[in-house]
Amino acid sequence: MTQDDLARQIPVVGDGSGSEADPRFHREELQLASRNHAIPLEALRYDITPPGLHYTLIHYDIPQVETTIWRLRVGGEVERPLSLSLDDLMRHPEVRQPITIECAGDGRAYTSPRAISQPWLTGAVGNAEWTGTPLRAVLEEAGPRGSAVDVVFTGLDRGFEGGIEQEYQRALSVADAMAHDVLLAWGMNGQPLPPQHGYPLRLVTPGWYGMAHVKWLGGIEILPTRFAGYQHTAYQYTDDRAKVGQPVERMRVRSLMVPPGIPDFLTRTRIVDRGLVALEGRAWSGEADVAGVEVSVDGGSSWSAADLDGSGGPRAWRRWRFTWTADNLGTYELVCRARDAGGGVQPVEQAWNARGMGNNMAHRVTVIVR
Amino acid sequence: MTQDDLARQIPVVGDGSGSEADPRFHREELQLASRNHAIPLEALRYDITPPGLHYTLIHYDIPQVETTIWRLRVGGEVERPLSLSLDDLMRHPEVRQPITIECAGDGRAYTSPRAISQPWLTGAVGNAEWTGTPLRAVLEEAGPRGSAVDVVFTGLDRGFEGGIEQEYQRALSVADAMAHDVLLAWGMNGQPLPPQHGYPLRLVTPGWYGMAHVKWLGGIEILPTRFAGYQHTAYQYTDDRAKVGQPVERMRVRSLMVPPGIPDFLTRTRIVDRGLVALEGRAWSGEADVAGVEVSVDGGSSWSAADLDGSGGPRAWRRWRFTWTADNLGTYELVCRARDAGGGVQPVEQAWNARGMGNNMAHRVTVIVR
Repeated sequence: MTQDDLARQIPVVGDGSGSEADPRFHREELQLASRNHAIPLEALRYDITPPGLHYTLIHYDIPQVETTIWRLRVGGEVERPLSLSLDDLMRHPEVRQPITIECAGDGRAYTSPRAISQPWLTGAVGNAEWTGTPLRAVLEEAGPRGSAVDVVFTGLDRGFEGGIEQEYQRALSVADAMAHDVLLAWGMNGQPLPPQHGYPLRLVTPGWYGMAHVKWLGGIEILPTRFAGYQHTAYQYTDDRAKVGQPVERMRVRSLMVPPGIPDFLTRTRIVDRGLVALEGRAWSGEADVAGVEVSVDGGSSWSAADLDGSGGPRAWRRWRFTWTADNLGTYELVCRARDAGGGVQPVEQAWNARGMGNNMAHRVTVIVR
Repeated sequence: MTQDDLARQIPVVGDGSGSEADPRFHREELQLASRNHAIPLEALRYDITPPGLHYTLIHYDIPQVETTIWRLRVGGEVERPLSLSLDDLMRHPEVRQPITIECAGDGRAYTSPRAISQPWLTGAVGNAEWTGTPLRAVLEEAGPRGSAVDVVFTGLDRGFEGGIEQEYQRALSVADAMAHDVLLAWGMNGQPLPPQHGYPLRLVTPGWYGMAHVKWLGGIEILPTRFAGYQHTAYQYTDDRAKVGQPVERMRVRSLMVPPGIPDFLTRTRIVDRGLVALEGRAWSGEADVAGVEVSVDGGSSWSAADLDGSGGPRAWRRWRFTWTADNLGTYELVCRARDAGGGVQPVEQAWNARGMGNNMAHRVTVIVR
């Protein structure tokens, strides 16, 4: 069977665009939503996200990896191709760092019409402590040739996407790959990587959206040309899926709130007792340092500055706090928005794009004060 | 504000019934689907489910529990009320056992019209190794009086559900509570309970659907009467939500399959290479021992017996295996169904009920052989 014949047999569920009012894609969205999960927003309280609460986005299946035979292969435009066991890698200098990672599609299900893919609402994010060794040192061992342009990272997870059979692959430019804080990570929160987070080895590229942190890493190949794989087409900012857009790369500035009070099970509406309400949340940006967070308790009509805690590390989210004096009964829309030192600001209204990427709109939480 | 006034302010999204063709409830379903998650079906391969892959169903929020002040209170119809710290509990005899737990609503999103709640498709299950002490010994320390009828377990999670403010509460009869294998569990897979699985203490009632395994346990009260809390009304088999039905209790016999081959990202259609295909999965029942698993490769027209591995413990799921000779190209519907020693059989077609409970229909997986 040719690839084309096969691709024709995979059911087609539209062109990947749809709208919330169109139920045709509900099954596909639910399938993805029950495999992958966001952080429950109350878990934004933890400085370091416990592994089972950190968001997951698995394109294909979690592969079974036998570490007795697994090797990281480094090849292509290098002087000395490498084949490294996990033990070989763990003899390299060890770095341990809290790093915030968010999925580029977070917020997609709030856009309309929305791209049919993982239907994230809010919270495809986590801040784990990653342990590994700088990628740079391993690349230097291999010795990139002068011809090196892109570094391609290949995961061991395989599947079809957009009618194309593929291993999950993403590339970084040589300059980005040589950044001092890019890691080959074998640990998460002091334990071996959990299967769903890339056991035995994951590329961790601080500041980038999740698609760049290749899980179940099997190979690194240095190319003399630019890499144009499927996942680079899929992760683009574009108004038209048929057209080439701008690449999705670093995380836009964003803040989220721990919803205060107690929830209604089905609607997730919050019920808050009258009086002083301690609001808190997290803010991060992959583009620059977080410079401030503002809170609105009237749906965005007026804003007040929140307090920002000290950083848990240069690549970790920061906690913000704000005390709301909720004197009056009624329904309120709480909103938070962050800005970064590079001029990035969370928009109050989200600009639309065809693939539902980089939706960093202000976070809104409806509460009833009683 | 009265409870009634408050309940009227929580948005109403229908009466809890809906259909897949009705998009009004899509947002509510997605909110629940991105907080809670199923086991990715390929993780049925692990005998013991890693914590971050075990299904979660959290009705309200994960509560923050400070174990320096937390106590388990045991009271009501007892001779000696108790207040036990985690250290007190951990001085009791320790039991460690693999136990399969499935959510009673698993499969709900396949029913039509479907109840609007957590929209499970397949895989709200896990098999962790739980560590704790038998509940029976603690109850005997407290000394239930002759008047004791029901034992009520109260979690520290609080919220609204069906317009009623509540702590999560479920009861067992004294006889069920005194069963030798009911645990007060403080460990999961050799670690303290993760926050989402009930830290610091969870009731584990082997054989029962998940709603009986009360998380974040704070209190045990013995009543001289039958307990009729909200969660006993919610977990019922009934054709009409307005009517009292039969209680949902023990897990119906069920098997699931690890989907073979590789997936298409969006549709989860499987692509399998021609030749011998090793199929495997898990089977469990809360009502009796698993007696057999059958596999169909033609959508249920014909069935063959699968091999059943030895048990990983009396309360753990069992692995099944079947080798499929996939000689011909084309699309196939694979199906598995289990039966137990009590006469339970997975139905090929699911009988409908209004709350979407106990949906143990045979598991179907569509594959394309290439």
